[in-house]
Amino acid sequence: MSSCSAVDSSTLSATGDSYGGVVVHSSGLPKEPQIFKTSLQSSLKVWRRNGTKGVWLKLPIEYAALVPEAVEQGFIYHHAEADYVMLCHWLQDSPSTLPPNASHQVGVGAFVLNDRGEVLAVQEGNGPLKGKGAWKMPTGIVSTGEDLHEGACREVLEETGIDAEFQAVLAVRQAHGFGFGKSDLFFVCAMRPKPGPQELKPCETEIETAAWIPLEEFLQIGFMRSQTLYAKILDACEAWAEGRYHGLKAKVLEAGVWKPREDLLLVGKIHRKSSRHLEGQQQK
Amino acid sequence: MSSCSAVDSSTLSATGDSYGGVVVHSSGLPKEPQIFKTSLQSSLKVWRRNGTKGVWLKLPIEYAALVPEAVEQGFIYHHAEADYVMLCHWLQDSPSTLPPNASHQVGVGAFVLNDRGEVLAVQEGNGPLKGKGAWKMPTGIVSTGEDLHEGACREVLEETGIDAEFQAVLAVRQAHGFGFGKSDLFFVCAMRPKPGPQELKPCETEIETAAWIPLEEFLQIGFMRSQTLYAKILDACEAWAEGRYHGLKAKVLEAGVWKPREDLLLVGKIHRKSSRHLEGQQQK
Repeated sequence: MSSCSAVDSSTLSATGDSYGGVVVHSSGLPKEPQIFKTSLQSSLKVWRRNGTKGVWLKLPIEYAALVPEAVEQGFIYHHAEADYVMLCHWLQDSPSTLPPNASHQVGVGAFVLNDRGEVLAVQEGNGPLKGKGAWKMPTGIVSTGEDLHEGACREVLEETGIDAEFQAVLAVRQAHGFGFGKSDLFFVCAMRPKPGPQELKPCETEIETAAWIPLEEFLQIGFMRSQTLYAKILDACEAWAEGRYHGLKAKVLEAGVWKPREDLLLVGKIHRKSSRHLEGQQQK
Repeated sequence: MSSCSAVDSSTLSATGDSYGGVVVHSSGLPKEPQIFKTSLQSSLKVWRRNGTKGVWLKLPIEYAALVPEAVEQGFIYHHAEADYVMLCHWLQDSPSTLPPNASHQVGVGAFVLNDRGEVLAVQEGNGPLKGKGAWKMPTGIVSTGEDLHEGACREVLEETGIDAEFQAVLAVRQAHGFGFGKSDLFFVCAMRPKPGPQELKPCETEIETAAWIPLEEFLQIGFMRSQTLYAKILDACEAWAEGRYHGLKAKVLEAGVWKPREDLLLVGKIHRKSSRHLEGQQQK
């Protein structure tokens, strides 16, 4: 009994998950790398004996001294945030079925059209477009936990000082090999300025200049027009301006099956069942 | 000169980026933590003196021994993949403007409708739905670098053995607080089985059972119907089946402005300019 409890006391505290794996408790980690080394070794023996599939080890940044030892004992990195790194270790001979790390950043572009048929355009003060005199729509990256339509409003306000409201998603672009090799989803949003007088206030640190430019001029922006994909986006913007395109509406709706949650749904115009349509169905 | 070159030889090799920061060369890193410590200290002095804004330090997993020293000298984690951890250090007093880590995982759900008006449905062999007898559409996570419409085809084939083709995105759902606190974008795709006889072959490790079930039955699935958001998705599926909804088509198009690139564009049905419409515009 005593030797058994001695072994137990040196293993790491962990909880099983619903996929046959274990999650090590970050709170119970020893600070001292040598003690961690021994504990991890005996824990791995126990987990292997129990047929554990995978092990999750989250090391808060104040435990950075433990990272080399975890790697030494076969852990690899899974993902990291500012204040921790998550490591994992697949203990089976079969290929790992651990879920992948987040794969995409999400961007928004704002096609803000006012009542005078003018589009809100900016020239960037940073990055590859800096100093090229290139007009473009305001764009930005959606923050963690932020809904797309809210991100679009925030970016327009931050970059130009214009308080605009979201109307519809016009198009979605997916591209690969963006920041740090990740993929990028870019949502082009139709928007309109909220009523009342509003003054352009370009963000000093990000934007060189901002202006309302006529729709016809916006639709001819060279670096957009020259690429098939961006030209299609301009087509969708033009069609939206002329009432020939619906886009996807955004609604935050109850979505929790097991616990309460509200999610954002983007969906297009669904035509109602007409009596004529139902007739047609019945005739089939 | 000699003392100057002595300082130079102990600093880390790095390249400036277009945002006023530097990227440390992973290839030139010393393996020995003590040497790394001294080099990083003198490098940070140089970078601060030069007004460098931020420092990117990518440590391949074979350099895990250097992680504790980087954290000791003020670096925080930015992100990690299996074989490396990226650390960063903002050297200015102003708030950091370093770009965020990938924030979303991307999932696909497949509404596969056959010519007999039946929908491809599965019961999961893992996870929270296991053993609950709950029918659902095949779903999965898009792999890094994979296009959405391809991911949907792959998942249907892997889970059910059915070779199906993508037709349109019916709806997009964004939710927060998913795996590891990240957000999730879920694309519901309309699909149809490719022509010819096909046999259901449920994936043994993931799927309990798979079947073609009548559309009417699919549209009444309890745990979907009971939540406003999922009910709206079912409405879109039903409208698609009855020709009352367009959805977004997927096209891979030339998109490279500075270097050749092809991206995926999702866009809905754009109505053509009719002569009647143009007349209407001119009368305004």
